[in-house]
Amino acid sequence: MHNIPPSQPFDDDKLKEECGVFGVIGLPEAANFTALGLHALQHRGQEACGIVSYDSQHGFNSAHRFGLVRDNFTKSSLLNTLPGPIAIGHVRYSTSGKKDAVIRDVQPFLGEFSLGSAAIAHNGNLTNAVALRRELIEKGAIFQSGSDSECIIHLIARSFQNTIPERMKDALRRVEGAFAIVAMTRTKLIGVRDALGIRPLVLGKIGDSCWVLASETCALDIIGADFVREIDAGEMVVITKEGVQSHRPFAPARPRPCIFEQVYFSRPDSIVEGRSVYETRRQIGVELAREHPVEADLICPVPDSGTPAAVGFAHESGIPFELGITRNQYTGRTFIEPTASIRNMGVLLKLNVNKALIKGKRVVLVDDSVVRGTTSRKIKEMILKAGAAEVHFRIASPPVKWPDFYGVDTPDQAQLLAATMTLEEMRAHLGVDSLKFISLDGLYRAAGHPNGRDNENPQYCDSSFSGDYPVMPTDMIEKGFALQAAE
Amino acid sequence: MHNIPPSQPFDDDKLKEECGVFGVIGLPEAANFTALGLHALQHRGQEACGIVSYDSQHGFNSAHRFGLVRDNFTKSSLLNTLPGPIAIGHVRYSTSGKKDAVIRDVQPFLGEFSLGSAAIAHNGNLTNAVALRRELIEKGAIFQSGSDSECIIHLIARSFQNTIPERMKDALRRVEGAFAIVAMTRTKLIGVRDALGIRPLVLGKIGDSCWVLASETCALDIIGADFVREIDAGEMVVITKEGVQSHRPFAPARPRPCIFEQVYFSRPDSIVEGRSVYETRRQIGVELAREHPVEADLICPVPDSGTPAAVGFAHESGIPFELGITRNQYTGRTFIEPTASIRNMGVLLKLNVNKALIKGKRVVLVDDSVVRGTTSRKIKEMILKAGAAEVHFRIASPPVKWPDFYGVDTPDQAQLLAATMTLEEMRAHLGVDSLKFISLDGLYRAAGHPNGRDNENPQYCDSSFSGDYPVMPTDMIEKGFALQAAE
Amino acid sequence: MHNIPPSQPFDDDKLKEECGVFGVIGLPEAANFTALGLHALQHRGQEACGIVSYDSQHGFNSAHRFGLVRDNFTKSSLLNTLPGPIAIGHVRYSTSGKKDAVIRDVQPFLGEFSLGSAAIAHNGNLTNAVALRRELIEKGAIFQSGSDSECIIHLIARSFQNTIPERMKDALRRVEGAFAIVAMTRTKLIGVRDALGIRPLVLGKIGDSCWVLASETCALDIIGADFVREIDAGEMVVITKEGVQSHRPFAPARPRPCIFEQVYFSRPDSIVEGRSVYETRRQIGVELAREHPVEADLICPVPDSGTPAAVGFAHESGIPFELGITRNQYTGRTFIEPTASIRNMGVLLKLNVNKALIKGKRVVLVDDSVVRGTTSRKIKEMILKAGAAEVHFRIASPPVKWPDFYGVDTPDQAQLLAATMTLEEMRAHLGVDSLKFISLDGLYRAAGHPNGRDNENPQYCDSSFSGDYPVMPTDMIEKGFALQAAE
Amino acid sequence: MHNIPPSQPFDDDKLKEECGVFGVIGLPEAANFTALGLHALQHRGQEACGIVSYDSQHGFNSAHRFGLVRDNFTKSSLLNTLPGPIAIGHVRYSTSGKKDAVIRDVQPFLGEFSLGSAAIAHNGNLTNAVALRRELIEKGAIFQSGSDSECIIHLIARSFQNTIPERMKDALRRVEGAFAIVAMTRTKLIGVRDALGIRPLVLGKIGDSCWVLASETCALDIIGADFVREIDAGEMVVITKEGVQSHRPFAPARPRPCIFEQVYFSRPDSIVEGRSVYETRRQIGVELAREHPVEADLICPVPDSGTPAAVGFAHESGIPFELGITRNQYTGRTFIEPTASIRNMGVLLKLNVNKALIKGKRVVLVDDSVVRGTTSRKIKEMILKAGAAEVHFRIASPPVKWPDFYGVDTPDQAQLLAATMTLEEMRAHLGVDSLKFISLDGLYRAAGHPNGRDNENPQYCDSSFSGDYPVMPTDMIEKGFALQAAE
Repeated sequence: MHNIPPSQPFDDDKLKEECGVFGVIGLPEAANFTALGLHALQHRGQEACGIVSYDSQHGFNSAHRFGLVRDNFTKSSLLNTLPGPIAIGHVRYSTSGKKDAVIRDVQPFLGEFSLGSAAIAHNGNLTNAVALRRELIEKGAIFQSGSDSECIIHLIARSFQNTIPERMKDALRRVEGAFAIVAMTRTKLIGVRDALGIRPLVLGKIGDSCWVLASETCALDIIGADFVREIDAGEMVVITKEGVQSHRPFAPARPRPCIFEQVYFSRPDSIVEGRSVYETRRQIGVELAREHPVEADLICPVPDSGTPAAVGFAHESGIPFELGITRNQYTGRTFIEPTASIRNMGVLLKLNVNKALIKGKRVVLVDDSVVRGTTSRKIKEMILKAGAAEVHFRIASPPVKWPDFYGVDTPDQAQLLAATMTLEEMRAHLGVDSLKFISLDGLYRAAGHPNGRDNENPQYCDSSFSGDYPVMPTDMIEKGFALQAAE
Repeated sequence: MHNIPPSQPFDDDKLKEECGVFGVIGLPEAANFTALGLHALQHRGQEACGIVSYDSQHGFNSAHRFGLVRDNFTKSSLLNTLPGPIAIGHVRYSTSGKKDAVIRDVQPFLGEFSLGSAAIAHNGNLTNAVALRRELIEKGAIFQSGSDSECIIHLIARSFQNTIPERMKDALRRVEGAFAIVAMTRTKLIGVRDALGIRPLVLGKIGDSCWVLASETCALDIIGADFVREIDAGEMVVITKEGVQSHRPFAPARPRPCIFEQVYFSRPDSIVEGRSVYETRRQIGVELAREHPVEADLICPVPDSGTPAAVGFAHESGIPFELGITRNQYTGRTFIEPTASIRNMGVLLKLNVNKALIKGKRVVLVDDSVVRGTTSRKIKEMILKAGAAEVHFRIASPPVKWPDFYGVDTPDQAQLLAATMTLEEMRAHLGVDSLKFISLDGLYRAAGHPNGRDNENPQYCDSSFSGDYPVMPTDMIEKGFALQAAE
Repeated sequence: MHNIPPSQPFDDDKLKEECGVFGVIGLPEAANFTALGLHALQHRGQEACGIVSYDSQHGFNSAHRFGLVRDNFTKSSLLNTLPGPIAIGHVRYSTSGKKDAVIRDVQPFLGEFSLGSAAIAHNGNLTNAVALRRELIEKGAIFQSGSDSECIIHLIARSFQNTIPERMKDALRRVEGAFAIVAMTRTKLIGVRDALGIRPLVLGKIGDSCWVLASETCALDIIGADFVREIDAGEMVVITKEGVQSHRPFAPARPRPCIFEQVYFSRPDSIVEGRSVYETRRQIGVELAREHPVEADLICPVPDSGTPAAVGFAHESGIPFELGITRNQYTGRTFIEPTASIRNMGVLLKLNVNKALIKGKRVVLVDDSVVRGTTSRKIKEMILKAGAAEVHFRIASPPVKWPDFYGVDTPDQAQLLAATMTLEEMRAHLGVDSLKFISLDGLYRAAGHPNGRDNENPQYCDSSFSGDYPVMPTDMIEKGFALQAAE
Repeated sequence: MHNIPPSQPFDDDKLKEECGVFGVIGLPEAANFTALGLHALQHRGQEACGIVSYDSQHGFNSAHRFGLVRDNFTKSSLLNTLPGPIAIGHVRYSTSGKKDAVIRDVQPFLGEFSLGSAAIAHNGNLTNAVALRRELIEKGAIFQSGSDSECIIHLIARSFQNTIPERMKDALRRVEGAFAIVAMTRTKLIGVRDALGIRPLVLGKIGDSCWVLASETCALDIIGADFVREIDAGEMVVITKEGVQSHRPFAPARPRPCIFEQVYFSRPDSIVEGRSVYETRRQIGVELAREHPVEADLICPVPDSGTPAAVGFAHESGIPFELGITRNQYTGRTFIEPTASIRNMGVLLKLNVNKALIKGKRVVLVDDSVVRGTTSRKIKEMILKAGAAEVHFRIASPPVKWPDFYGVDTPDQAQLLAATMTLEEMRAHLGVDSLKFISLDGLYRAAGHPNGRDNENPQYCDSSFSGDYPVMPTDMIEKGFALQAAE
């Protein structure tokens, strides 16, 4: 029904994050700062964006738009409709499973409750949303959207608690799955992370009285906020003019943040667990070079996501780092509607090989992942056509064998190359001289755990690599997904 | 009058190319291929784009649009209005000196002549356009656009020759300056480069009967065309079904292609003078490390344009290459209309420092140029705020001291930092520990001339660095520009 | 937030209807017919329009748009998204009291219930909506819109009945006020009128198996449907493939349809109570000529709404009917944003006097109403400036002294000229030679009741003229409105 | 290529005017007044509109838009780009013969001449444009548009006179056909009518120093200007701050203004030849009643264009005037894209019969013209279906037998009903009880010439009725049109 703006520069052969959240309280024009914060989080979702603000004179105001923050929330004519010293915002990738986006699905959601209104923005995925939705409709709830996140709003409406934060606790104790939530009432900014802290949320500060919540630290940087700390797994913070109150509404559990944030999603300049994501990715390259050395003439990243690991690989191996593939920065999600004469050009629209550099060389290509493998095959063909002597793939994540149910958009398992082929079959399928993935332990080491994965108490949620699902995917099991023991 | 789409990811402190041209003859759906070619040339101009095609049944058809190729020429509804086996196209940066773009200024221009219609797309700048325009208006010409390129159309209309190519020769002998032109009649695709070959143009081929003209080889790659050769300086090629005819309409001269193509404009994967632009830029980094070595902990490119030189610098110096600055790929030309509370955030909207990496380190920043210096200052501030111990700038081009009059959009000379300050004053102004530019000879060496610049017969047009203008800038002198001896 | 399209040709000094409803079952492409029906009802609301359809293959589909039917629901690209043999639609005038329209307020509303989905379109106004809304929110309902009509959806969701029609009965027994509702489930088309039949609803038929519901008969004519009968006051019809079932969910009451439908809102070609609205309006002119004769040279309607009464007045009085005022049919709701030099042109933008005709003449102006009186003053000034000898106003409705609470958008009582001035004060204020209104009895006579108004059991709801409110305006009394005895 | 906005309320079975022109000098914000004037002239062309203004500080500015004046030139953001005390504007109907409108064809045209710039807006049609265009292209002119009016601009450019007005005289002496032109230089407002005064142009005044030119007087009324006089046939007025200079550049000739202005095009409130167009049209009805009386029960206009004649017919005949047909004022040019189930509804989308009024009556339908006859047939069918006892058509213009070549858009002669059938054949084709047209003499009498048409020296250009072409249609004859003796 809507045209999705063609501004998404990644291809379909990648995993996708579903959301970024942001909130700020305590300075004038909070919506303007929210727009900047969402812009910094744009890599987490390009389909749509929304902002809600509150001002005592004008009440709650909201705007939801398809497309990029820069194409919508940069006009004073729109921002002026969002006055007030408190605001939250959301960028999103897509509706789970729906082809046509509708504006009603765009967050933040705004609910009018008997205690007053509140707005809520959710990053993550609820694993019992289908059952909850069914139950709520039985009880008379009218859903506005196709979004599972709306269950939370209805649960808040039906709680008998006397404050919005207490109602949110009631509501969130009913939901299962992964969530990082930023919410607001007229006077409070609220942030919550699920008990395992699967999805990220950080706290920042400007001066003495302005507080910020964001999915990543890069959204603090853009507005000049100082990083205070990560919100803990299972923590709810309620922020008012008086300051930050911390609550622990859920049963204690060992945190298991999503390892994908390190490998893929977070921007390289964001700080996670005390160090930059760039550094972790670079270190993955170092580990990869140690685990899977190769004799070659040059290390070439698949731009842009493979670059940090390629830097690390080159450094560790001593083989020169060279930019052998150029990415066309103007390529959107879709390009020319293919005609018979042009079809099958595929990857050439966004990537081009530097032929003069590649010719006759033994090339190590460093990419961040292999999902369906379609892009990898095309890249290999381009490299060979340019005259490379050998092509070696080094992949900065373990094989993706399992779907994610906690807010990462993965293809069906049957489409995951690593779920259906052995390593050698994959190598043959891609047609390369060698194909190597970093080990799960190598990945953990790169992320700062020198002893690798603690299989008794894994430090991360890594279900797509391990099949180890820390939260039962109830809805999916009902739909027929079979949990299997991790290999 | 028109909103320029905010899709231009470069900032205002860069030199800008004004155009890219493309043409194809000999296959069905020529306009679709032209759209792809223009997409590959999008870095040469993001303001507007246009395509003209010809089909014996439907005649000449054209479409001109503001914004990116991908946002316009990807819909079959538009491409279907451009049928036929011959087409040319144009991407453009901006109207010289005009603030408001009008669609009439967007090329290709289509003229109805007594010999039949023809379309023309021009990359470059005419140095006697003001005088020509005055003369043509005196004789009754009505200009459709504010574009100087339109003079060429009027000169063609007034020639008494019997064919369009012969009329084009007449016309082009009257103009001075730099031009790479792609033109078409109902049956001919025509390419011309000015006598010095200042602006680039290459010839490609698909199969036996399809020919392609483009500003750069990357536009051949995207449609699977083979690179045949560069069009020579001063050459006109007339391409029909029968093949390629070469003409030499101008007095012979030593070629002086624009050195900026190597330093800035051409895509790194394009081939110029037999090697990749990436390789030249990387080599500039090598030369720069030799000329201006420095003790430091890491080499950090200013993304994305400084990256190849940083790779070369790191390789030559042995200092690690690290991605210390992250660019937000979603930043357009403009972002939030500044409010009092947000103003002065400037560069933070598109660049962010990787604080964890930079802290306490001696950092070498490699950038491609310093024009006004405004961006450089902001980057330095960010780096220092992140806790860098030392900041050293290494610049991959000589100081820009002179405006360009051959198709590159340079600020007024008074705004060029290097035109008004000594090197030491610039260093102090930027507030860095050291600031070094590659020498002109070093640049020539990096570009493949081991003996550096031949000052008797310079190999390139390098007027912005040298003040040596190979074509008299007649219009500008009339407006008061004072030629000075090169230093 | 949205730009209201400037297509509303009436001025602000008129009463406005709030809605038109339409539904059809039993033929392919029901949405296309609904679009036509809504187009015929466009005079009942120009701000927005919406259609919901159902098809067993594609489920429920809906589209809501700001602006006119002709500017939205005429494209096959949109209509094709609304397949199926059952559809309902809605045109609306405005949000009660809200300045900025939001798409969420546009009907039909679609609710997902435990029994399956249903859509509902409402014309009218609920007089206890504020209290109902408060109660529903207490119980956990989340309102999607600012529209009072949404209460009905929530009441349906909370009913414990086993079918949608039974749930609708439950729900509608809880609401007070005026309503004509068209609703649909997957298999049923439902129509309901409130107990007094204040708002209109008619039933039509095409062939044997296609049934239509519409606010007025003119919407039957446009699709070639035959008029069957009016839905009775207090009746609910449930229409399936099998035919029409009639229910009487409410306590019996004497019908009191809104007299404004005759005076203002219904299209002149619609049939109400067995005769055309044009005929009633023409007859008002006859009665007016009898009650308030005047010596004059010509009868001039204020176009277009005063024309039928002017025809009747001319006929009865024998004074020639002449088109002395021309309406610019291209005038929208708003025109030029006034600048100092143009301000105060006001009514001239849409009306112009035929000076040559008016000069020196005694003119009787026949208008349908005087609300605020602002337009009447401007018209009088134009007529006098054109040189009229005398100006006599004859008004085809009694003085509007009271606000309406049943779906007609009236200004605050303090802005109603007749609520604050005596007849003579009004005449002096307007500056005319005479000013006369039809009497309430004369109006009833014209509407087909030879004995005038039956004050014991008034035949119509005429609260704006009489102050006699047949349904208690609960919400408004809570807000401070004081009921007064009718004069 | 462009979507024509669907705001044209007339149907395809009418003749269409091609343009309206307006100009003003001597007050601030001239463009705002021009917008109002064009709005009043909107009935003369709804496809596109444009305004050019001049201000000593900002030079010439222009804006051209598709669609209605009210939808474009009402925003201060656009009007503010058109500053200055002098402006001209244009509304237009369509491109002669072209299906797809392009913005380059929208007037006023702006030309840069050696004497300075000038803008020109043209109403009418040149009968030697094809030959002129061919000649101009031979001499090197480059046409910007497909509009014949552009020839005038090129002829001005090639004149050797020393002022724009003198050059305009040179140019206009070369063109043949019908024109009313409003032009402007930096300091002069210029108006010209062709030697026969076929197309209209009037002069108005505000205060002492502001002058206005417009196609009709209704455009003076809307801005409060006083009507001064009509521009004479063959007159050129040059207006500056000093006042109005009159020139007579053409050989003297008897004026023959277009009779269609009286019958169709001019707004009823416009003054032509000293009396209102309404009065002429009403008088046509009187003459028609005298020429073709009929026994009947009611006189019913075909709205809106047949209304004035119906008023006159009713008055003269004594048969009651009744509004038996209602026009849907929201109908645009196009409505629903027809589907199999809806096709053939045709006229019902905009007209509906008042059945209750018509049933059993002998009805006289008064329409302004019969062109193709398609609408007339549908109206007759509607009336009969409503149960009329008899249907008599009375047409307020003589039969249209010949195409117009002077600016009125007529169908090909083969499509004109009256060109291919006898009167009786037409009656039978339409299926009515009687069909009568006003005689040519009757029309002239109604227009104020008691002796009817002076066949020696006809008072009007009436070629479509008489086949008497006062200016040779050179281009059309070249295309094969055969002049025949008038009947």
